[in-house]
Amino acid sequence: MNSTATAKPHLHVVARDPQRTRARIRAAALAEFSTKGLAGSRVDAIARRARVNKRMLYHYFGNKDDLFREIMKRKLEERAAWAAGSPDDPGETLRYWFRLACEDVDWVRLIEWEALAVGDGTVVSETERRRAFATGVEKVRALQAKGLLPRDLDSQHLLLALMGLTTFPLAFPQISRLVTGLSPRSAEFRKRRADFLGRFAAWLNPARAAVPLPSPARPGGRR
Amino acid sequence: MNSTATAKPHLHVVARDPQRTRARIRAAALAEFSTKGLAGSRVDAIARRARVNKRMLYHYFGNKDDLFREIMKRKLEERAAWAAGSPDDPGETLRYWFRLACEDVDWVRLIEWEALAVGDGTVVSETERRRAFATGVEKVRALQAKGLLPRDLDSQHLLLALMGLTTFPLAFPQISRLVTGLSPRSAEFRKRRADFLGRFAAWLNPARAAVPLPSPARPGGRR
Repeated sequence: MNSTATAKPHLHVVARDPQRTRARIRAAALAEFSTKGLAGSRVDAIARRARVNKRMLYHYFGNKDDLFREIMKRKLEERAAWAAGSPDDPGETLRYWFRLACEDVDWVRLIEWEALAVGDGTVVSETERRRAFATGVEKVRALQAKGLLPRDLDSQHLLLALMGLTTFPLAFPQISRLVTGLSPRSAEFRKRRADFLGRFAAWLNPARAAVPLPSPARPGGRR
Repeated sequence: MNSTATAKPHLHVVARDPQRTRARIRAAALAEFSTKGLAGSRVDAIARRARVNKRMLYHYFGNKDDLFREIMKRKLEERAAWAAGSPDDPGETLRYWFRLACEDVDWVRLIEWEALAVGDGTVVSETERRRAFATGVEKVRALQAKGLLPRDLDSQHLLLALMGLTTFPLAFPQISRLVTGLSPRSAEFRKRRADFLGRFAAWLNPARAAVPLPSPARPGGRR
């Protein structure tokens, strides 16, 4: 009648491959959590998206909260690997994290749902995440010590500022569109933002501050 | 028996004062929309919070979407008034909007719910909000023209950056806490952030960039 009959043996084989099935459940869970948040997500819907039955999902991952923890753990491992590969130059760093955030809007949405649900309360993977941010602050501090970022700025707040520069336009796509007329999903927006981030970082470079600019506004500025 | 009997006549009078009743419904609606978002909010819950019956609420404001539009309209009027009173100095501007955002976390949450619900799609009060942001971009452009902000930066993206600096730590309270160990609701966090914003803005001042810094790292820097 339709393709179900011929497709079934294949699906059957896939369902017997635990690794692929787990991967499919994880992908479905990420999509569901990103779309609806932890509270709004349903295990039924995740199972449907993953084309497995609910019992198999429970067998592999436990309940909804367990599955959410698993997704967060994976995402955090991914991000730790990204952090390890982050460039040293502040402008490059901003462009690097912006590009990654563009490709990982699911993550931005996950932390946005989380913000609305828990506020300043305890989060999933609390300890690991505090440690990861401490590493981020250390990295900022190292760049300050090298003279690549201003030393007079609070390192923790500088990290928050750098995160805001890359993440805010993606966390608030409607605002990005209202301001620029472009969706942050568009290639043109991303190109302009990446260019902006490089130029912006240059203003935070203490070495640049020491160089007199060829500005017409500089009084008596001739040489 | 309890205080209800004596309190009732007072409540009764209040309910007969349309202006106060409307104000109470608006406050209840803002609290509900901020807590649960437009989709998650229920007119019943708003009526309960406002201590009015649902029919009275419908009579004054129409349905849930109408009420939401009314809340957004009021908030936007409030923000337009704030924008008109915004200082000229970039450091002061950042501190000003940060202080206002601290006192108006409901607004931050409203646009966060909106971001998750509509993405880069059309928003309530679309035209007014596009106009308000255009005014914001004009203000940034004027500061660039005056030499108070870098002229080589895209004005629209600079506005997004300034918004990110003030709003990101409040939109993601859990991240602010994980990074700094302090809740963004705490006075200590706010003091440190305000101080940071002032110093950060100084690095964006083109005039500062023209002044050689007394940095020990400057090669041959003696005069």
